[in-house]
Amino acid sequence: MSTQIFSAKKGKITDEIKLAAISERIDPKKLMKSIAKGHTVITKNTKHDIEPKAIGSLVSVKINANIGTSKAFNDAEEEFEKAKIAVKYGSDTIMDLSTAGNLKEMRKHLLDKIPVPLGTVPIYDICQKKSFLDATEDEIIDVFLSHMELGIDFITVHAGITKNVAEKYSKKGRLAGIVSRGGALLYQWMLHNDKENPLYSNFSEILKTANEFDVVLSLGDALRPGSLNDAGDYFQIAELKTLGKLVEIAHKNNVQCIVEGPGHVPINKIAEQMKMEKKYCHNAPFYVLGPLVTDIGAGYDHITAAIGGAIAAMNGADFLCYVTPSEHLGLPSIEDVRAGTVATKIAAHAVNLTRFKHLAKRDNEVSKARFDLNWKKQFELLLDGEKAREIYCSKKSSFDSCTMCADLCPMKLSKIK
Amino acid sequence: MSTQIFSAKKGKITDEIKLAAISERIDPKKLMKSIAKGHTVITKNTKHDIEPKAIGSLVSVKINANIGTSKAFNDAEEEFEKAKIAVKYGSDTIMDLSTAGNLKEMRKHLLDKIPVPLGTVPIYDICQKKSFLDATEDEIIDVFLSHMELGIDFITVHAGITKNVAEKYSKKGRLAGIVSRGGALLYQWMLHNDKENPLYSNFSEILKTANEFDVVLSLGDALRPGSLNDAGDYFQIAELKTLGKLVEIAHKNNVQCIVEGPGHVPINKIAEQMKMEKKYCHNAPFYVLGPLVTDIGAGYDHITAAIGGAIAAMNGADFLCYVTPSEHLGLPSIEDVRAGTVATKIAAHAVNLTRFKHLAKRDNEVSKARFDLNWKKQFELLLDGEKAREIYCSKKSSFDSCTMCADLCPMKLSKIK
Repeated sequence: MSTQIFSAKKGKITDEIKLAAISERIDPKKLMKSIAKGHTVITKNTKHDIEPKAIGSLVSVKINANIGTSKAFNDAEEEFEKAKIAVKYGSDTIMDLSTAGNLKEMRKHLLDKIPVPLGTVPIYDICQKKSFLDATEDEIIDVFLSHMELGIDFITVHAGITKNVAEKYSKKGRLAGIVSRGGALLYQWMLHNDKENPLYSNFSEILKTANEFDVVLSLGDALRPGSLNDAGDYFQIAELKTLGKLVEIAHKNNVQCIVEGPGHVPINKIAEQMKMEKKYCHNAPFYVLGPLVTDIGAGYDHITAAIGGAIAAMNGADFLCYVTPSEHLGLPSIEDVRAGTVATKIAAHAVNLTRFKHLAKRDNEVSKARFDLNWKKQFELLLDGEKAREIYCSKKSSFDSCTMCADLCPMKLSKIK
Repeated sequence: MSTQIFSAKKGKITDEIKLAAISERIDPKKLMKSIAKGHTVITKNTKHDIEPKAIGSLVSVKINANIGTSKAFNDAEEEFEKAKIAVKYGSDTIMDLSTAGNLKEMRKHLLDKIPVPLGTVPIYDICQKKSFLDATEDEIIDVFLSHMELGIDFITVHAGITKNVAEKYSKKGRLAGIVSRGGALLYQWMLHNDKENPLYSNFSEILKTANEFDVVLSLGDALRPGSLNDAGDYFQIAELKTLGKLVEIAHKNNVQCIVEGPGHVPINKIAEQMKMEKKYCHNAPFYVLGPLVTDIGAGYDHITAAIGGAIAAMNGADFLCYVTPSEHLGLPSIEDVRAGTVATKIAAHAVNLTRFKHLAKRDNEVSKARFDLNWKKQFELLLDGEKAREIYCSKKSSFDSCTMCADLCPMKLSKIK
């Protein structure tokens, strides 16, 4: 099969590149060149019937919403509802991080019904069958192949945490430990089996299948900082450098990839963290979780992450994974998914506005409707008009302006006669 | 009476400066020098018995919460509850923007019971008695004096919108009009009465009383942009330059002042807007409302503003006025006040962490408690532990980790043995 990066290197503008270029309102040739260099990817498994979506430095910042069961909360239908809500409020992709229930059926259903790229973390599957510590290398690699064959568009591969670094961590530790679930599993596996990270040592196997189905590898950050204190420490940077080498190998093998990033980062270190990724990882698209700009915001971490995500996107992050109000506290509810999606969309949109002039139209139309006190129009155009309408109606007054100013509405007072 | 700036210019470290320096953990002499230059203010009316609070470039970023009635929603007790909630969740000051009910009684009650600086917009009082258009200059000035005599710590003075600029606005307009309630009232007054802005022409009167009670003047931004499109336009900048001149006059008269700012600003223009204020306004503390980084976020504008506020604070804003989820839609509920306060506090704290090393202690303690799965300790230390506890408990599982990972908790998997 020919991957997007392979075609692009040959100077071919594929149908997928054409479609993505139209949706981004950019020149398809420019997009092709960016894909050839690995600076932009198109997330679409050749078996998955969806609109191709581009992620990278040339295109608008995208957002992802995570859904998925755990042993403590396992309701496939509710997770499916979450995916729908996330897409409704603007999520560009969905990741299914389920660890309980009929995982394959859930994924098939999502691939069938959700019209955006689907991502997964394949190694979770193993934990359902046996202790991860007892998994063989073959079992671990096979689960990646099965996800790719099923049609998954992008998969997290925690190949950057090497045995050498894991052993150093086991001696030294850090304040918030390892906060990546997949990363922590592999850390334990390496120590227990006294073997190199199987995703690292078998990376070429994974590349082979990724190449076959044009799956985008999301190179996982097992050692991302889970507290401000841990940001930029030896473990994070050692892993990032390894990921950079894997990016180079993936590109040589015509496999598209993106790199996952932090996490918790002090607000004044975000810019340099973004530049560092671009430098070490050959400008591969950067996919960040947050970054969260304080550790004391639990209950409001969609906001903590929206602040960090906006600053990250201003400085080169290409793909923002949402964080919901229940981050650090439990699996999100459907309402949490909605709040997390809108918060992250605000961060991405604010930055996209600075790069794509046509996007200003919607903001300007909202502002005009607002000035005209045209509430209906305003609700139609907002990111979440239903929520806005609900708030407005809960306070309904006898004035046609809102309850904030009532008779003293500046919109009315400043009308030009 | 001697104001803080007057004393500071004479090289005197007042008790208020001492107390503020202790609470900020900075050198009182440095604080004195900053106050002498007008780069920092202490908001405390000489008649008001509260802890002095410093705002400016030398000290931590502060946040304000607005409360207040309107004709459409007028419940003094609920507004008082809002003030208490805001202070509970970390608001450094309260502004009472009431326009309905027994305004003087409400203010007295707030001055008595709320232990933080209180701000007001005095001209609103006039609208209760008569059409603002018919107010005389004396009536307008007198209402300022009455607020200052009552003990209000900082008052908004929309003295920067001059008749010349108002007339230009009346011919040209702008997308979102004038979004400042006080500003729009004065705009109409000038056109109707064909007279200069009375706050501008009688500025020396206001200074005299401000000097007597050491009231901080918050120089209002009548022409702040209410849409991204209007940011940085002629009207905003013309007013800002006038405010700069008024800052100079206030400082010469030993009156402390701060400058109010936007509003809605594209995310990539926030830094330059902050620098512009510092330049034109002689480094007077900058008090911003937002800035909101998109116009399409209504229902979530506490988030839109937290993003802008954090970036503003990174670039010199000293004082962030909160925005609640009901911004643009109505007066906030008590829950909205809580959400707005915490969101703004997150933005301020994220920036304060980069300037004051001792603040990291709380973040580190939360991270340690999180890694130890010590939920009780974590809830005690969070900005809003009650909310976090509520979310956690709503999803309670049989695992001691949260429902996100259940049996696969990375905190447990990465413990060092």
